[in-house]
Amino acid sequence: MNARLKSDHPTIGVFDSGFGGLTVLRALVDRLPQARYAFLGDTARLPYGSKSRRTIVRYAAQSAEFLVRERGAEYLVVACNTASALALDAIQDAVPIPVLGVIEPGAAAARKASLSGDVAVIATDATVQSHAYSAACKARGLRAIEKACPLLVPLVEEGWTDHAVTAEVIRVYLEELKAEAAAQMLLPDTLVLGCTHYPLLRPLLEHAVASVGMRVIDSAESTADTAVQLVNGRYSGSSSSKGASETEIHCFATDSVDKFERLGSRFLGRPTGKVELIDLGG
Amino acid sequence: MNARLKSDHPTIGVFDSGFGGLTVLRALVDRLPQARYAFLGDTARLPYGSKSRRTIVRYAAQSAEFLVRERGAEYLVVACNTASALALDAIQDAVPIPVLGVIEPGAAAARKASLSGDVAVIATDATVQSHAYSAACKARGLRAIEKACPLLVPLVEEGWTDHAVTAEVIRVYLEELKAEAAAQMLLPDTLVLGCTHYPLLRPLLEHAVASVGMRVIDSAESTADTAVQLVNGRYSGSSSSKGASETEIHCFATDSVDKFERLGSRFLGRPTGKVELIDLGG
Repeated sequence: MNARLKSDHPTIGVFDSGFGGLTVLRALVDRLPQARYAFLGDTARLPYGSKSRRTIVRYAAQSAEFLVRERGAEYLVVACNTASALALDAIQDAVPIPVLGVIEPGAAAARKASLSGDVAVIATDATVQSHAYSAACKARGLRAIEKACPLLVPLVEEGWTDHAVTAEVIRVYLEELKAEAAAQMLLPDTLVLGCTHYPLLRPLLEHAVASVGMRVIDSAESTADTAVQLVNGRYSGSSSSKGASETEIHCFATDSVDKFERLGSRFLGRPTGKVELIDLGG
Repeated sequence: MNARLKSDHPTIGVFDSGFGGLTVLRALVDRLPQARYAFLGDTARLPYGSKSRRTIVRYAAQSAEFLVRERGAEYLVVACNTASALALDAIQDAVPIPVLGVIEPGAAAARKASLSGDVAVIATDATVQSHAYSAACKARGLRAIEKACPLLVPLVEEGWTDHAVTAEVIRVYLEELKAEAAAQMLLPDTLVLGCTHYPLLRPLLEHAVASVGMRVIDSAESTADTAVQLVNGRYSGSSSSKGASETEIHCFATDSVDKFERLGSRFLGRPTGKVELIDLGG
């Protein structure tokens, strides 16, 4: 990769345990269509959420190294809440490029949005158990209540993103969240989507919280906003007339690519193209 | 292990990618309380369903070898639909003891139960895609329609086994199944539960199919029935006054045991006891 290319078109690596992180890639492409993207879903070893920290660190570092060494990534976005929560430091140690997770940007956006200082975070079981969002919110003077919503990922993957069952599941989860917040004397006015699958449920979620006046923060978008600042601070030549439809995107997966290719386009908002199978060992 | 112990108390190894296979173990314990049991959940590498056949064969063989070499298993029950569908031959090659999967017993029970000769199988995406139940049914002169129900496992794991949402999801899936069966000119009178999580939904499922006169076949129970025949054919001293509550059960897992210990008792029908963490490599 020569210097001229480098200054014109940054290469951004995006990594997830599955393909949910394609929502983060989509938000990146919307903002930086001139960049090149390499997305790796470590599908052979998902879900990270049920694995120990030591295992996740090893898997995430291998994935990060692939994107840097094999694909020339100059920036890395860890579009995986579990890896961001448990392995961000280790990934930063493993590769010599700027690394951005999804949790800090989500918490920072919540800080800007919240008037009450109380925020609610919905996420998978593993992300909630890590309490990474709570910690990131607390560091910004926010009080956070976290709620695990394990059914939302399978509902998205089933394609029921506009289904009465999903609306009912969301209603049940938000009722439970409200009761738990009240028990802790919290009045959250901001709902952070702490899972890369949840942007596909944004219309249903916004409808569900509208009546109580809560605002929805999508950490995929917050992360992409932060990435833009990072890239624009380093790349003077990042303005481009190239549209998102022409953006160069290569997707990689570590095991069966069928589901990735079948469902990925819903997350990315365009076809993923051919997903290349790679072997990271293990 | 000496000869006397061996003739009195067979040791049965039970293997699954997760802990769903505990429903099979439960059915075994109900029928053979005098046996010793070692259950291994390969939780570090679940779900098998998204992995290639080659990978599943390797994982399943390692798990089988652990149960035979380390725990002295004299019989092996593969209480995992994906491994039964894709790796049963390989497991039989890997260990020198009788190996039983969950698919053949389920299909055999459906053959006995069905009058129309048409049966429906509900299972995970991976099991349906393997078409292992279709093949096993066809070999018995049955016509089978398979229906993937990906939301049922997460609903069971969320504990919503008696929830209105789950009843509605089952209604939707069975409506789709009915339409697909009609399109193929099939009139299924038997519903095979082709996933080890589904026995926990049996009351809801039986309620849902009662109106159309379908009978539910639980492949966990069918597998346990087949195992009893296998063991009783070899062990003359298998009658015992020992009740199921005294049965010796050791559970092992390959990664974080929290979820296994937290949810496993619902599947096993009693506490799992301390789950021992083991390392199979990879």
